[in-house]
Amino acid sequence: MSDQNLSLGLYYIKANFRGDIKMIYLDNAATTYPKPDEVYEAVMDSMKHYGANPGRSGHKLALQAGRIIYETRELIAKFFNIDDPMNVVFTYNATDALNLAIKGVLNSGDHVITSSMEHNSILRPLKALEKIGVETTIVECDEDGNINLEDIEKSIRPNTKLIVTTHASNVTGTIFPIKHIGQIAKENDIIYIVDAAQTAGVYDIDVKDMNIDILVFPGHKSLLGPQGIGGLCIREGLEIRSIREGGTGSSSESLIQPDMLPDKFESGTPNTPGIAGLYAGIKYILDRGIENIRKHEQHLTEYFISELKKIEEVKIYGPCDVKKHAPVVSINIGEEDSSEIAYVLDNVYDIGVRPGIHCAPLAHKTIGTFEQGTVRFSIGPFTTKEDIDKTIEAIKQIVDEI
Amino acid sequence: MSDQNLSLGLYYIKANFRGDIKMIYLDNAATTYPKPDEVYEAVMDSMKHYGANPGRSGHKLALQAGRIIYETRELIAKFFNIDDPMNVVFTYNATDALNLAIKGVLNSGDHVITSSMEHNSILRPLKALEKIGVETTIVECDEDGNINLEDIEKSIRPNTKLIVTTHASNVTGTIFPIKHIGQIAKENDIIYIVDAAQTAGVYDIDVKDMNIDILVFPGHKSLLGPQGIGGLCIREGLEIRSIREGGTGSSSESLIQPDMLPDKFESGTPNTPGIAGLYAGIKYILDRGIENIRKHEQHLTEYFISELKKIEEVKIYGPCDVKKHAPVVSINIGEEDSSEIAYVLDNVYDIGVRPGIHCAPLAHKTIGTFEQGTVRFSIGPFTTKEDIDKTIEAIKQIVDEI
Repeated sequence: MSDQNLSLGLYYIKANFRGDIKMIYLDNAATTYPKPDEVYEAVMDSMKHYGANPGRSGHKLALQAGRIIYETRELIAKFFNIDDPMNVVFTYNATDALNLAIKGVLNSGDHVITSSMEHNSILRPLKALEKIGVETTIVECDEDGNINLEDIEKSIRPNTKLIVTTHASNVTGTIFPIKHIGQIAKENDIIYIVDAAQTAGVYDIDVKDMNIDILVFPGHKSLLGPQGIGGLCIREGLEIRSIREGGTGSSSESLIQPDMLPDKFESGTPNTPGIAGLYAGIKYILDRGIENIRKHEQHLTEYFISELKKIEEVKIYGPCDVKKHAPVVSINIGEEDSSEIAYVLDNVYDIGVRPGIHCAPLAHKTIGTFEQGTVRFSIGPFTTKEDIDKTIEAIKQIVDEI
Repeated sequence: MSDQNLSLGLYYIKANFRGDIKMIYLDNAATTYPKPDEVYEAVMDSMKHYGANPGRSGHKLALQAGRIIYETRELIAKFFNIDDPMNVVFTYNATDALNLAIKGVLNSGDHVITSSMEHNSILRPLKALEKIGVETTIVECDEDGNINLEDIEKSIRPNTKLIVTTHASNVTGTIFPIKHIGQIAKENDIIYIVDAAQTAGVYDIDVKDMNIDILVFPGHKSLLGPQGIGGLCIREGLEIRSIREGGTGSSSESLIQPDMLPDKFESGTPNTPGIAGLYAGIKYILDRGIENIRKHEQHLTEYFISELKKIEEVKIYGPCDVKKHAPVVSINIGEEDSSEIAYVLDNVYDIGVRPGIHCAPLAHKTIGTFEQGTVRFSIGPFTTKEDIDKTIEAIKQIVDEI
C-alpha cells in the first residue's frame, strides 16, 4: 500500500469522525450492529417508563421492571431448553459470566481441560487460577481450529473437574462438536461449560440434549441485545460458589449471601434497560426464525468465501465449509500486517472489520498467524449481499495496490 | 388500615399495571427516575450511531465508542479530583465495584474495619471473606446512624489493612465524616474505601482532599446515568488484584491479565450505551450545578421532615438536620408494618417508596427497626414541592384511617 493512501485515510478519518457514520459493518462477532428497531425501543421504554429498581421496592414501576426481567428469563429458558427460568442468571457480559462459572466451580487441586482455540475470557481466568493450584490442560486443535475428541478423552485425569470450551472460534468460526464433548463430560462425571459467544442466537443450543452444565452467552452479539448484559444458564442442582456478594433484595435481614437462584449470583442493581433490550432481540430472532437468520448468514459466508477463494493473494483460515463454520471469516493478504489491511478497509472503503489477535492468542498459534494476526470479517443478520460484493471489490483493489 | 382499602389497592394495580404510569417517585435512593432527556438521547445515540466494540477493532465506530468512554473517564476524574482518567474503572454496578475493591485488597489474615450502617454490598463480601481468614470489626453507630471516630481508632489492630464505609446511609441518610475517617486511615497506613452510592452526584467528593484510596460509585443513582453501569476510582500507585480476567483488547498475545489500568479491571465488552448515558448525566449535573441540585434536594428534605414532625404518629429516623443528612428519609407510622404502608402509598396514592430492610440489616438493628423495617422516601433532582405536599397529605390520610 502506498503512503498516499495512508494519508488519504487519515484525512478521511478526520473529516468523518463525528459525522453520521454509514459503514459496511463486518464486525458482528464483536458486537452486532445495527440492532432491530424493537431493541432500541425496548431500551428506551424501560428507561423512560419504568426506570425503577426491580426486585426491591415493590411499587408499580419496580414491579414492572421485575416483570420484564422475569419474562426475559422465561424467554431465554425456552430458547436454550431450560425448565426453570430461575436458573438463568444475568451478568455484565459473557466474560463476567465465564469468570463466575469457572471460578464458581474450580478449587485448588482440580484439573480442567480446555482447547487452544479459546478466547482470553477463558484462558486468562484459568491462568489466574494456576496460583491457587488449579491445573489446566490445553488440547491442541488442528490448523483449521478443529478439536479432536480423542485428545479430550486422553486428557482426562482422576481430578478432572471441568471441561470448558467455546461453541465456535471467534477467529476462524470453527464449530466445536459440543454435543459430543458434553457426552464425554457426562460419562466421566465432569462439569461442562460452553462459551456460546459466537453462536447463541444463530445456532440451536439445547442444554439438555447437549449435556451442557453451564451455558454462557453475551447479550450484545447474535442475541441482538445491547452491550452491558450477558448471562449464564446453570443446570438444576449444580452447586457453584458466588463470586460477587451484595444486596439482592431477598433475605435482606441476613449478612450471608442467599443460596437461591438467581439471587445468589445477581447482587446489586441489574441492567434493566439492557435486559429489556435483550428480550426484544430474542423476540426478533424468534419472529424472523433462528433458522432463517442462520441460513442468511451461512449463505453470505459461503458466498464470501467462494469469492475470496478466487483471489490468489488471499489466504483464508479455518474450515471453508459453512456447515462447520460460524459466520466469521479470517483472512490475510500475502504477508501484509492485518492491522494495515483493516485500516485501509476502514478509512478508504468504509468497511469495519477487526484485525489482530482477537483476544485469542493460542488460536493464532494454532492456525499459524500469531505474528501477522488475521483480518476478521463477521457477518450479522443485517449484512447484505451488496455489502459482501463491495467488500470483495475492496479486497481486490487492495491486492492490486500492494 | 381497612381491608376495603387493600382490595381497592389490588383492583387499582390490575387496572393500571401496563398503562403509562405517572407516579410520585420517591425511590431515588434505589435508582433516580426520571433521568434528564439528554441521558435517554445519549444512550440512544450510542446504540444507533456507534454501537460497536470500543478498544478492540480500531474502525471508526469502534473508535467513537472508545472515545465516549475515555471522555467519560475524564469527566469522572475531574468530578472527583483524580489526575489520571485511566484510574477510573467501569463495572456493572456499585456492588461489582465494591467486590473488586474489597477482594482486590484483602488477604487471609488481614483485618478490616467497617460500620453497622453499611449496605449488604459491603457486609456480604466481608462475610464471604471470613472463610479465607479475613477478620472484620463492625463499629456500632448510634441510633441516628452516626459513627464515632474514636470507635474507629480504637478498632485498629496491627493487621488492619482496610477501612470501608459508606458516605451516607441508604436507610437514614446519615452522612459519615469521611474526610476524618480518611485522615485516620492515612495516619495509620490503612487503605480507605468509600461507598458513595448515596452521595456521588449530590455531595462534593474530592478523593485527594478526603484521603480516599478507592471511591466506589453507582451510575444509576445521583449521577443520573442508566442502570447497568458503576465504577471505582483507584488511587495512583495502589496495587489491587483483579477479580475478573478476560479479553481487554490489550496485550492480546498474552494469557496473563495486563497489569495496566483500567484494562486490568475491565475485561470483556463494556456497557458503552450505559457509559454514554452516564456522561450525559454528569454533564447535566455540571450544567445545573451540583450545589444547586444539593440545595434543591436538601430544601425538599428539610421541608418534608418539618411537615412529618407535625404528625404525631410518625416516627422519623436518623439525624433530622439536613446538614448531616442525604435526601433519604426513613419513617414508620406507629407500629404498622412498613411494607403495608408502602403498599397503600403505591396503590391508593400512586406514590412509589421503598419499605423494609433496604439491604442494610445492621443499620436497622442500630436504629431499632429490624422487625418493622422503615418506609423510605428518597428525593431526587426532579422531585417537586408538590410531590412532597401530596405525600404529606397521603401520610396524614393513612394515619387517620388506621
